[in-house]
Amino acid sequence: MDIKMDVDALQAFLIEVFPQVHADFQVLDVTPKSVRVKLITADQHLRPGGTISGPTMFALADVGMYLAILSRIGPEALAVTTNCSIDFMRKPAAGVDLICDVVLHKLGRVLAVGDALIYSEGTAEPVARASLTYAIPPK
Amino acid sequence: MDIKMDVDALQAFLIEVFPQVHADFQVLDVTPKSVRVKLITADQHLRPGGTISGPTMFALADVGMYLAILSRIGPEALAVTTNCSIDFMRKPAAGVDLICDVVLHKLGRVLAVGDALIYSEGTAEPVARASLTYAIPPK
Amino acid sequence: MDIKMDVDALQAFLIEVFPQVHADFQVLDVTPKSVRVKLITADQHLRPGGTISGPTMFALADVGMYLAILSRIGPEALAVTTNCSIDFMRKPAAGVDLICDVVLHKLGRVLAVGDALIYSEGTAEPVARASLTYAIPPK
Amino acid sequence: MDIKMDVDALQAFLIEVFPQVHADFQVLDVTPKSVRVKLITADQHLRPGGTISGPTMFALADVGMYLAILSRIGPEALAVTTNCSIDFMRKPAAGVDLICDVVLHKLGRVLAVGDALIYSEGTAEPVARASLTYAIPPK
Repeated sequence: MDIKMDVDALQAFLIEVFPQVHADFQVLDVTPKSVRVKLITADQHLRPGGTISGPTMFALADVGMYLAILSRIGPEALAVTTNCSIDFMRKPAAGVDLICDVVLHKLGRVLAVGDALIYSEGTAEPVARASLTYAIPPK
Repeated sequence: MDIKMDVDALQAFLIEVFPQVHADFQVLDVTPKSVRVKLITADQHLRPGGTISGPTMFALADVGMYLAILSRIGPEALAVTTNCSIDFMRKPAAGVDLICDVVLHKLGRVLAVGDALIYSEGTAEPVARASLTYAIPPK
Repeated sequence: MDIKMDVDALQAFLIEVFPQVHADFQVLDVTPKSVRVKLITADQHLRPGGTISGPTMFALADVGMYLAILSRIGPEALAVTTNCSIDFMRKPAAGVDLICDVVLHKLGRVLAVGDALIYSEGTAEPVARASLTYAIPPK
Repeated sequence: MDIKMDVDALQAFLIEVFPQVHADFQVLDVTPKSVRVKLITADQHLRPGGTISGPTMFALADVGMYLAILSRIGPEALAVTTNCSIDFMRKPAAGVDLICDVVLHKLGRVLAVGDALIYSEGTAEPVARASLTYAIPPK
């Protein structure tokens, strides 16, 4: 359970591979079983009233899970999301950054499964939870 | 099972309520149990290689379900997504518009549940499927 | 999209492979993209008040999806459920058999994805919906 | 965040309300945000080869979530499952009891949401994960 990509390597990878969205995401922490990512909330993430949109929270959970997998298998992989089940539980605080904690439950030969919890920064109760499955292509 | 908002009413509602994204979505058809919506694919929906991003497909299913509920209960409602389980099954055709068909299975006093199938326009096999639950606030 | 196992072949397979539960399930129809299965409701499926238990509906959707895959790839396969997202929408009629319609959306080399709708026999509104993913082992 | 039902109260409630299945489940621990339940594996839970069936794991996650809600709101409630998304990640050890840990993420006026992790007793890697939503009826 070695880490193959640390915080800096993951951040550099985001900049290279997702030039359009990398500025939205800041990798905060990596352990052998988890990753913490921040969404830097900006106008394009907001709905009328200042709340953060559902697709933005989906994107955050999805990026978090992707980074959790890459941290363990390295940057060469073309892993793709096959399933996400997401629950929206509370309204995020208006204009506040979001913190996403991903825990990897399984990293198999073909499938990876993990859970994400998303918080408005500085609050204790999660605004959303998601479970995600990625398919890992054969080498 | 009357329709309270037809294609034109739903399209006008999108323009009013989602000024940032309404141009992405075109309402094509409404029946008492279903709605068809098109995503007009543009640069901001694409990932490297031209494929359409997961968050974009999530947003399309979510908007489709929202419109299916509004078509039945009218524009006054503040319905919110509580759950979405989405499966990404095939790579969308590069740069092609997406068609989303939503079927409403339940429209209860508190919860609405439906299924969405998403296709690259002109192809028979769906690229994604999603089931969604909305909470409908008391009047 | 040939059918490799028809109604009789699937029913015989259930008897052979699931001796404990096969009497619960009756295969009604098979097409290249769908399967219809009946749950013959009995005491062990009921909760106090006569309603059918959630695990029973889960089992019905799961068996239906399994049979839909086998109808297409034949009896040799050791396919296993990897994900199921199920919504319970209405209370089933007390003591009435359940009908489950499964539609196969994808039958890939590694993953199969389908949707199930479950009805109390003779009623038009579904009591539950489920989406299921199976992993198909390499030959 | 008081506990309204402790381990003994929950176990007594299971015996009273689910006379058919209570012997399968043993409540091990209750905190203000979590419940631990054991499934005492028996013949009726097994599939050929000795593995524990999917419906059995679904039932365990469902009972665990139900008990987590009751521990907080007390025995009078008629809470019902509205959604469960479950991932089967590893084959359970043959004939070994299962441990289910449920964490409650939200206990709202109308909806409760939680996550369950299921382990073969004595092993560190979960065999399944599930997220569940319950609807809580108005008093």
